[in-house]
Amino acid sequence: MGSVDVPVALLGYGTVGAAVNRLLTEGADEIERATGHRLRIVRALVRDPGRERSFPAAEGVLTTDFESIANDPSIAVVAEVMGGVDETGEHVLRLLRAGKPVVSANKQLVARRGDELFDAASEAGVQLRFEASVCAAIPVIKVLREALVVTNVHRILGIVNGTTNFMLTQMEAGSDYDAALTEAQRLGYAEADPTEDVNGADAAAKMAILATVAFGSRVRLEDVQYDGIERIRLEHVRAARELGMAVRLIGSATLIGDAVDVRVEPAFVDRDHPLAAVDGPFNAVMLQGDAIREITLEGPGAGGLATASAVVADMVSVIGTTGTGFLQNDASWRTLERLPPGDLRSPYYLSIEVDDRPGVLAHVALRLAADDVSVARLSQRQLNGSASLDIVTHEASAGSVRAAAAALAHLPEVHGEPDVIRVVAERG
Amino acid sequence: MGSVDVPVALLGYGTVGAAVNRLLTEGADEIERATGHRLRIVRALVRDPGRERSFPAAEGVLTTDFESIANDPSIAVVAEVMGGVDETGEHVLRLLRAGKPVVSANKQLVARRGDELFDAASEAGVQLRFEASVCAAIPVIKVLREALVVTNVHRILGIVNGTTNFMLTQMEAGSDYDAALTEAQRLGYAEADPTEDVNGADAAAKMAILATVAFGSRVRLEDVQYDGIERIRLEHVRAARELGMAVRLIGSATLIGDAVDVRVEPAFVDRDHPLAAVDGPFNAVMLQGDAIREITLEGPGAGGLATASAVVADMVSVIGTTGTGFLQNDASWRTLERLPPGDLRSPYYLSIEVDDRPGVLAHVALRLAADDVSVARLSQRQLNGSASLDIVTHEASAGSVRAAAAALAHLPEVHGEPDVIRVVAERG
Repeated sequence: MGSVDVPVALLGYGTVGAAVNRLLTEGADEIERATGHRLRIVRALVRDPGRERSFPAAEGVLTTDFESIANDPSIAVVAEVMGGVDETGEHVLRLLRAGKPVVSANKQLVARRGDELFDAASEAGVQLRFEASVCAAIPVIKVLREALVVTNVHRILGIVNGTTNFMLTQMEAGSDYDAALTEAQRLGYAEADPTEDVNGADAAAKMAILATVAFGSRVRLEDVQYDGIERIRLEHVRAARELGMAVRLIGSATLIGDAVDVRVEPAFVDRDHPLAAVDGPFNAVMLQGDAIREITLEGPGAGGLATASAVVADMVSVIGTTGTGFLQNDASWRTLERLPPGDLRSPYYLSIEVDDRPGVLAHVALRLAADDVSVARLSQRQLNGSASLDIVTHEASAGSVRAAAAALAHLPEVHGEPDVIRVVAERG
Repeated sequence: MGSVDVPVALLGYGTVGAAVNRLLTEGADEIERATGHRLRIVRALVRDPGRERSFPAAEGVLTTDFESIANDPSIAVVAEVMGGVDETGEHVLRLLRAGKPVVSANKQLVARRGDELFDAASEAGVQLRFEASVCAAIPVIKVLREALVVTNVHRILGIVNGTTNFMLTQMEAGSDYDAALTEAQRLGYAEADPTEDVNGADAAAKMAILATVAFGSRVRLEDVQYDGIERIRLEHVRAARELGMAVRLIGSATLIGDAVDVRVEPAFVDRDHPLAAVDGPFNAVMLQGDAIREITLEGPGAGGLATASAVVADMVSVIGTTGTGFLQNDASWRTLERLPPGDLRSPYYLSIEVDDRPGVLAHVALRLAADDVSVARLSQRQLNGSASLDIVTHEASAGSVRAAAAALAHLPEVHGEPDVIRVVAERG
């Protein structure tokens, strides 16, 4: 053990940075009990040291000079809470190469530039931790890397975007999409520009990070197929409810043999499934593995204080393991191929508008069977002059379901394109 | 870093011990990637080395000689998977005093003799880890000690006994208590003697451990007030369902000022609460704290392989942090008083059989109000010649509710003792 007093630094001192300072200050005794050390922020890189801060840094801590952090050999760990990818990435690389452990809260940075960062950390033999980059204070990275080390996690299912989960919960209560989005913005769950939330890009970055850690193979943001909730309408939410399900934006990462499939898409989730019970802005991640069957972690997936709590836990873990070799190796040790996107198997929901006359149902079922898609549940509703078929299929490959839907669209008795939504029903 | 090869030992080589050996063998590469070390079992203490084992130990590993483990300076960590309190406790104390880190899967040992064990570990400056002692592979101890280090967890609500949760789920589906127990035994979820499961003692030991870790103050098994599910009948399950709730055996640990309250009791849990969705033999623990609001962990709470997975994770964490001072201090650093049991506040459900005539309802409500118990929801059902009142109260102290129930029992229009069951409704 070194000295009790351990100097640390921050890159950034916004909402999260100020909260990290607050937690380090107010939690100093707890941290000393756990590690034998007191962590003290000696430098924080900011653009404007004069700006007012919610929990002000000590005199002389705020600096615009990155070099004063990179070149200070006494700084034991640096937490990156500034956001951004390009300049921030260069800073983090510089620090790692200089032998400084780094903790990052930045999902875009880890998902986009993980390769370079992990390589630099590995070469320098220092830790890179990034718990706060996924689901804020829900400790899914620590659990995957330290608690489930021998359980061969082969599948992750997660609700990793709180904005869209809040919106879907609002829609269950009867709001339409636009009203749900407005309410999310009013409550601060959605940004003024909610594009990355509602189109699935935010969830995709988080799933890339989780898949990388769980499967030990680099999964980049561009390896994740994603689709958001923009196409979800109230009628989907109602159809799901009638089937005993709920609509959720589901991130899934699946290891099948030597291939991985990582995707984000809206899905109908069976009411008995733990993820269906996740309401409002909460996140949850289910980890399925050999020795554990499945473990689910749920909690608030955002918020300055929750994010800061994860940053501090990572800093504490770095200090508590330095010099042991623990988690100093790159988490990615193998290269896995990408599963062809059409090969992932799942049950699916199809909504098909058809002519309301005898024989149509049989025709539709035959057309599905031709693509090896078999019907598990079916209900028919009368519309004005036509009928709507709600179908839940048995497990089928995404490709066959897509092919069957395209073929159905060409039948004369089918009106327009069938709606296709994945179904999440089974537990581990 | 020391040598790559790290000799370790087991106390016990039953189902869990054999599974630990299997996971260490099959997961050797994963462990080396995380820690730089390969853990190899060199000794395992057993009564009968000749007995057949599911995953046999290497030649010469099984021994009846405890001293060959205690006196071998090369052994870096010992996992106790033999069960028992007296002799096992002496073994663990000897090992800790000899400077060997110990990992234990033994809830009775940790809950009953935690004082001595933690003192010995602290004095010797070695780690005592015990993840597997609570909820098998659900990493709630690691999360409390390492991920939530600065969040001041002030409340834990948990379903920590899978047998009773399975039975309650069966009762929801219409089984009566005896049929549910028989089915639990048939499926291997309940022991031939299920006493400690159904009377709450098993859950109480786990809650004592969780409270100790979360609040940093020693909570012994005898500090936990517990009540099991033996008094739960089908009519309670039905009444709960009508109120939009589910019956669950709930462990709660609450920190109020400088006092703690730890208890296990059946409760009506609101359907919107994450714990109501926990079905079958699963366990779940909700941690509520300042910076995180609440984090819930759910998974299978028992099973040889799941337990072994937690033991291995602890061994890996010991090896990955040795020499740093991380978690080498006693987790208990303060003494908290015990909250008088009547002071804990909660909403309650009361079921009261009364004469079916005008004025009775008002009389009951007045009697409750005299003890500061106010009614939030009430429904009345006709019985044969009498009526049954189902009442959900606003939050009230356990003592007032008990006093009000006793007073009600003395009213001439009330038949017998009212049924009183705690209600868990609020989230964080």
